[in-house]
Amino acid sequence: MKNFHPTGNCPVRDVLSRLGDKWSMLVLITLNANGTMRFSDIHKCIEDISQRMLAVTLRILETDGLVERKAYAEVPPRVEYHLTEIGQSLIPHIEALVGWALENMQVILKNRDAS
Amino acid sequence: MKNFHPTGNCPVRDVLSRLGDKWSMLVLITLNANGTMRFSDIHKCIEDISQRMLAVTLRILETDGLVERKAYAEVPPRVEYHLTEIGQSLIPHIEALVGWALENMQVILKNRDAS
Repeated sequence: MKNFHPTGNCPVRDVLSRLGDKWSMLVLITLNANGTMRFSDIHKCIEDISQRMLAVTLRILETDGLVERKAYAEVPPRVEYHLTEIGQSLIPHIEALVGWALENMQVILKNRDAS
Repeated sequence: MKNFHPTGNCPVRDVLSRLGDKWSMLVLITLNANGTMRFSDIHKCIEDISQRMLAVTLRILETDGLVERKAYAEVPPRVEYHLTEIGQSLIPHIEALVGWALENMQVILKNRDAS
């Protein structure tokens, strides 16, 4: 049987566990839709994410190099986020998932109602 | 600003929160790789998922119509799972994500080490 065990450096698991969560994907498509954004603006766009979860998500995306964080030495301090090139290269795949969702949502909702 | 608020029937959020978790995706690609499978075989292939989490994940995928569950009236009872047509139609998009991961993993790992 083909397996997907956690042992070894499995990139399939790695990408699915670090990027395949709804907050990472929502942050990425929010930044893609709006360009450079401040923390508070990202928060406003997603709304029901907690400040802590947004900070954790941005930190993971920054560590992986998908999002760049720029801090400006101003008073009050200004911090902005934008997608890097590698972050942008993931967008078409997320959009493909979203397109699939739009195409199949009616059938899925009907299945849910029926069960 | 373009936003992705939780209000309304937003298919973007819906797909990302129900399918965009690593267990759903791992179960889908495991079933795609191996065809019809019993619960215990799926469990063996993923390994570190708990029995409870696997049962919950399969139930969600079944409710949405992505996976079909077949119970055979045998002793001992046999229950098998396989992808439906709509489940199969999601596979190329998950594979695209995996392909992206394989392509970009080296750079991402380097970014992590540097931070």
